Amino acid sequence: MRALILTSAAAVLIGAAPPPAKPLTPTDIIAAAPASAWRDIPAEDLMVIEMQGGRKVIIQLAPLFAPVHVANIRAFARSNWWEGSTVYRVQDNYVAQWGQNETDKPLPTGVVAKPAAEYHRALKGLTVKPLGYPDAYAPRTGYAAGWPIAYDPAAGTANLTHCYGYVGVARDLAPDTGTGAELYAIIGNAARALDRNIAIVGRVVEGIDQLSPLPRGTEALGFYKDPAQRVPITSVKLASDLAPADRPAFQQMDVMSTTFASLLRLRANRKDAFYERPAGGVDLCSAAVPVRRKPA
Amino acid sequence: MRALILTSAAAVLIGAAPPPAKPLTPTDIIAAAPASAWRDIPAEDLMVIEMQGGRKVIIQLAPLFAPVHVANIRAFARSNWWEGSTVYRVQDNYVAQWGQNETDKPLPTGVVAKPAAEYHRALKGLTVKPLGYPDAYAPRTGYAAGWPIAYDPAAGTANLTHCYGYVGVARDLAPDTGTGAELYAIIGNAARALDRNIAIVGRVVEGIDQLSPLPRGTEALGFYKDPAQRVPITSVKLASDLAPADRPAFQQMDVMSTTFASLLRLRANRKDAFYERPAGGVDLCSAAVPVRRKPA
Repeated sequence: MRALILTSAAAVLIGAAPPPAKPLTPTDIIAAAPASAWRDIPAEDLMVIEMQGGRKVIIQLAPLFAPVHVANIRAFARSNWWEGSTVYRVQDNYVAQWGQNETDKPLPTGVVAKPAAEYHRALKGLTVKPLGYPDAYAPRTGYAAGWPIAYDPAAGTANLTHCYGYVGVARDLAPDTGTGAELYAIIGNAARALDRNIAIVGRVVEGIDQLSPLPRGTEALGFYKDPAQRVPITSVKLASDLAPADRPAFQQMDVMSTTFASLLRLRANRKDAFYERPAGGVDLCSAAVPVRRKPA
Repeated sequence: MRALILTSAAAVLIGAAPPPAKPLTPTDIIAAAPASAWRDIPAEDLMVIEMQGGRKVIIQLAPLFAPVHVANIRAFARSNWWEGSTVYRVQDNYVAQWGQNETDKPLPTGVVAKPAAEYHRALKGLTVKPLGYPDAYAPRTGYAAGWPIAYDPAAGTANLTHCYGYVGVARDLAPDTGTGAELYAIIGNAARALDRNIAIVGRVVEGIDQLSPLPRGTEALGFYKDPAQRVPITSVKLASDLAPADRPAFQQMDVMSTTFASLLRLRANRKDAFYERPAGGVDLCSAAVPVRRKPA
């Protein structure tokens, strides 16, 4: 058995000459990032979902991009509205989806039943770090406030993108935009055609690997045929509502930091291990903003 | 529970006016494709992998792009060399990997122990259908002989790409290129940075959803910690070596057909169901070449 990607420790150099400096990996850059390159994620932006079987998924919400939908989601969480709901759909190379339809039970206080579309926002007000490589879906891509964005300087708009682990609001046909009562996460190739057609409300920062290996549903669109296949959700809490000892703390890399700029350059020009031929470019969904547990 | 993507059957129109024509979906176009838009895949290009637990994965080999590695893979299959090997690595959002290291047992007759790099090939000799949208990794993308390709007209080269379900040859550091004894399939976002650094030998045409939900390995790079977690491979056969009754038959869409051109236009401009805002573009890995079981 061999590693498709060898760790640098596996590269044994033989001979008398001093070994050349090992090319850096993205992991090296992230590990060496100074404390100043990290920003705390507010506890009210972290939502902890616990499921039967000990599965736990932590989502970072994006109020800067979908404020009304995120406010709804916080209200659902605070009222324990999702108790008894399930993961009921897993479609290969697409999405895992969970929650409960609004018609099943009364909406909690404070939930906006018919939110306006929050599929994009004004570019104005965002400080953007451009990525600088061509994209099939948008005039420009880059990063703002810790998030990957696609943007259109001419139209003055910016939107979050359907990269791996990103979380959107399931909805019926327009003009319905969904309340946030049912959510999905991308578990396959980026689904960028959905961008600007759905409200993206955040990203999974821990535990996407608890959703991605769930059995695929055999009904159309990956719905589970047998209700017994559904994965019950036992608890959904905002981190800010948890006792301090139970509260997870995360940080995201400052996208305006020199460390992040170095990381992007390296992602586009990997020379570590067996990357013999750097691509000279990278796409937005392959150059994620690093997120980590906040060091103690 | 709602469908993230509604089927057209779910869109009930109310009122006296005749309903407008429903916008086509990619599925509609594929279903309506005439027989002339399909090409049989040769049986010697189809490899059937059976695993414990009834898992079956069928791979289409790409001799046009990696002839020596594909010849090796056929030789491994024909000599039952993989019997007793396993899927031993599953890394989330990256790869599932299987096979057996060449050092474990003697190579079968006919296997080239040190193949040359087949990371790209000459563009010359390929009839190319350009995709026509920007790409972060290559000057051009398109399709040739049933395969998605990235290509560089100036350099005169073309290569297969690490899209979802594509299969590559695991290797150690260069100049080793791997024999094909160990293979991986992409089970997450496209891993295009690997393009031109590894020999891609084919794609999973059926059963990627047998690999993608496997438990993720907890060791570095997704290796299984406990050998008992490995998934035994019970049989690997070329379709051409199976009895006619057991032989799967597949077809791929002719990438030079008008049907495929229509499909690409639609993938870049979806208006069905809740696609309110067509992207105006699509990337290579989101616009796969349709493959189907050959109709009886």
